[in-house]
Amino acid sequence: MHKAWKTDPAKSLKAGPGFTLADVDPASTPGFKGDKKTGEEVLAADAADLAELQQRLYARGVEGDERRVLLILQGMDTAGKDGIVRHVIGATHPEGVHLKSFKAPTAWERRHDFLWRVARQVPAPGMLGVFNRSHYEDVLIQRVHQMARPEEIERRYGAINDFEAGLADRGISVLKVMLHISPEEQKKRLQERLDRPDKYWKYNPGDVTERGFWKEYQEAYQIAIERTSTDAAPWYVVPADKKWFARIAVQRLLDGVLEGFDLKWPLPSFDLAAERKRLKKS
Amino acid sequence: MHKAWKTDPAKSLKAGPGFTLADVDPASTPGFKGDKKTGEEVLAADAADLAELQQRLYARGVEGDERRVLLILQGMDTAGKDGIVRHVIGATHPEGVHLKSFKAPTAWERRHDFLWRVARQVPAPGMLGVFNRSHYEDVLIQRVHQMARPEEIERRYGAINDFEAGLADRGISVLKVMLHISPEEQKKRLQERLDRPDKYWKYNPGDVTERGFWKEYQEAYQIAIERTSTDAAPWYVVPADKKWFARIAVQRLLDGVLEGFDLKWPLPSFDLAAERKRLKKS
Repeated sequence: MHKAWKTDPAKSLKAGPGFTLADVDPASTPGFKGDKKTGEEVLAADAADLAELQQRLYARGVEGDERRVLLILQGMDTAGKDGIVRHVIGATHPEGVHLKSFKAPTAWERRHDFLWRVARQVPAPGMLGVFNRSHYEDVLIQRVHQMARPEEIERRYGAINDFEAGLADRGISVLKVMLHISPEEQKKRLQERLDRPDKYWKYNPGDVTERGFWKEYQEAYQIAIERTSTDAAPWYVVPADKKWFARIAVQRLLDGVLEGFDLKWPLPSFDLAAERKRLKKS
Repeated sequence: MHKAWKTDPAKSLKAGPGFTLADVDPASTPGFKGDKKTGEEVLAADAADLAELQQRLYARGVEGDERRVLLILQGMDTAGKDGIVRHVIGATHPEGVHLKSFKAPTAWERRHDFLWRVARQVPAPGMLGVFNRSHYEDVLIQRVHQMARPEEIERRYGAINDFEAGLADRGISVLKVMLHISPEEQKKRLQERLDRPDKYWKYNPGDVTERGFWKEYQEAYQIAIERTSTDAAPWYVVPADKKWFARIAVQRLLDGVLEGFDLKWPLPSFDLAAERKRLKKS
């Protein structure tokens, strides 16, 4: 862990019992001693570590280790989910990444249980899975806009916990991250999308409409975190008004999970001396 | 195009009429004036260009442009396919990449036509698709080891041309790259996998067995290139004994295709002035 980290985000950002979202300052940088410049240095310096850990995970997966990681990214529009994918995940080997961005469900997907399309995207052994949005939309936007009956929303929290406990049992470490921004910061970021021709395509008029439901979304997040931050799959709430902080925090959380795996390079699955002879003669 | 390029690889590496694989020196660096150090500078400098072009492609895809790119990577074992994925594709935004590595077909896949599993992996509009191996294995390894009847192998060349012409018609630019290495270079790379504990997992005893069929593979490549290097989907043969050269050559080929698209950022699909007002009030 880089020395600028004074407390591991795995501790300081974890949503444990009694967690209150409203108490988290989106502009804070808990556990980190340093400014943007330090943060950018940490991001670059730790990128190589993450890439190496991921290669070890992948190599072990090839050799039969069942373990893998699933990073779930949630947050309000413009919270920085794509930036995490680009700047944190993008520094690893594409071959070992299983990335899935969940959009509004299609007509076909809506004919199945809400977890159906998600279960199909669970990463294979050795992979670093990333969900850009996820089944949590089914208890967030769907709750805010009452797109499902209240009893169905209620059912989903339990279904999610059962599903994620099943993942954990099969060696899948689930890392759930909420990127937490303020409405003021969101306004700035949306404004930027309206000011820069290279960002128009990211702008969606619906995002402004959704701003009108800020309070309801925060409530929905609070409830979702309370109900689904389990030992098997805890939530981490990452202050995200400072993009640089959010990126190094997620990088550090991923590094922490992978370090916990104690990933040795696999031993040869063949006779090393015999193969050296065969190659020499070939 | 970086000034160290004296001839565009799109010209110098293209397998046109009368192409002979045996005439290509795997250690050469056609069209490029510079050494490894220059090559590494070019790779780093052009990475940002490729990333920007890919973002434009992706943005246009979101707005309805049908165009996309499909890079097909072929080559003998250790030719450097994974390195291209890591160092060239890895510099772009993961969200815009559709990467598929084709392994030996499963029992289920073998019950379908050889193009079935490939057609399912064609990239969506706006995406940069990458096939690490491909349907060409069905006329390479399958030809060398007579895993299909000769008439079936014969049929496949035409089927591939029809399939790829259909892709081109739908706005998919197919870029087919053979990474061409020498048997001596392969031996060195395999030796490295036997010498370094962090590379054992990449070693496969079958690779040494396949070395015994080097001549047959070169013949199979020659025939495949002759039969399937079409105007719609030409082959490029990239000398790959020098990894740095292969990487900048593929990077340059990709850049060239995307530059040919003349990718302007999409115009806003909404009323810019109205949205600015709405955001201000929100």
